[in-house]
Amino acid sequence: MSKAVILVSGGLDSGTLLYYLKKKKVSLHALVFDYKQRHKRELKSAVALLRVAKVPFEKIELEFPWKGSALTDKKVKLPKKRSVKRMSTGIPSTYVPARNLIFLSLATGYAEAIGAEKIYYGANALDYSGYPDCRPDFIESLNQTIKKGTKRGDEKKAIKIEAPLVNKTKKEIIEIGKQCGLDFGKTWSCYSGGKKPCGECDSCLIRAKGFTEAGFPDPLTTKK
Amino acid sequence: MSKAVILVSGGLDSGTLLYYLKKKKVSLHALVFDYKQRHKRELKSAVALLRVAKVPFEKIELEFPWKGSALTDKKVKLPKKRSVKRMSTGIPSTYVPARNLIFLSLATGYAEAIGAEKIYYGANALDYSGYPDCRPDFIESLNQTIKKGTKRGDEKKAIKIEAPLVNKTKKEIIEIGKQCGLDFGKTWSCYSGGKKPCGECDSCLIRAKGFTEAGFPDPLTTKK
Repeated sequence: MSKAVILVSGGLDSGTLLYYLKKKKVSLHALVFDYKQRHKRELKSAVALLRVAKVPFEKIELEFPWKGSALTDKKVKLPKKRSVKRMSTGIPSTYVPARNLIFLSLATGYAEAIGAEKIYYGANALDYSGYPDCRPDFIESLNQTIKKGTKRGDEKKAIKIEAPLVNKTKKEIIEIGKQCGLDFGKTWSCYSGGKKPCGECDSCLIRAKGFTEAGFPDPLTTKK
Repeated sequence: MSKAVILVSGGLDSGTLLYYLKKKKVSLHALVFDYKQRHKRELKSAVALLRVAKVPFEKIELEFPWKGSALTDKKVKLPKKRSVKRMSTGIPSTYVPARNLIFLSLATGYAEAIGAEKIYYGANALDYSGYPDCRPDFIESLNQTIKKGTKRGDEKKAIKIEAPLVNKTKKEIIEIGKQCGLDFGKTWSCYSGGKKPCGECDSCLIRAKGFTEAGFPDPLTTKK
């Protein structure tokens, strides 16, 4: 069976994608990124999900020597209590400069080194915060770049990034996760950096909307 | 004056580009990459060149958790004594999976965080080892990807990678370096990982050919 790389953040989207692909028996190798994010709590969830799914992973440590994002600089304020509708109309302070381009580039190196043909990326461009590096046209363009800039792209079928959840609503993603046996209590979405979800940041609000629409409670926020 | 990011490896090409841009009074901010390369000696040269040029820099530490290249795995053999003509007809074992995509992605994040408009990249696709991530079509494609996947690309003029040396011969690069006052004795090209240039790896051979054609001795190999 052909190998694939998957990026796992510990959130709902990458968690769902992980369980979905496991069910399809894809031979996965995961990357987890510790970039000194404010919400490093998500790493614990990423590792927990991967251990339960029995997927081997590498943790990559990156400390960006620059600031500029609310996710890597505690001095930059997190947006709070925004309506989900308004989130996708601009790019918020939680955007990390070129983060997903960096992560996907590292995933490309990993895929090439281990002979994987695909990179699975849990990006979503529907119920999201307007990040440009989650949109389909970015992913398509990066696939072209990977084709042109790698040894594998020169010699055989190029590595391809696939983002099966990119056009799904959060409700749909939660439904897929449920069907695939994902334990939502093991995922993490909150940006705030606390031990409990704040319930006010964009990520908490998008998650809450998804569970409300899916019609069942979020075990992460309802458990004691 | 507008800011620009430059990638500096310590080699002839990035050294020449650094001095060329300094002469043009471009406001440079450099990135140096420690990726546990076999020839980490080049980092000493990168830092020496940047100090003399008085260009601020950040050193980024990356340890790829995968192998697959003669530059990051001493068990993989370095090509030796190849003819320069043959080098560009295939991709050698010194290719590091997606390395320059990773470096340029990090440079994109840096450029975006500091408000730089350009990334200067000393790639060369004429006297080179056939690396796909040094070719113009890769650079053009990555520029499109950066435009589509960054906040800056959404809101104003996108960050652009420029590779002014991409179509120059090594002879021409050496001539430009000389005109701009580059001290070639402070640069480093050898891949082998020794304290002196081996004179046999692709990088030493391309360099030697360039100096022969430029018609003056290489201070690095002629000094005691």
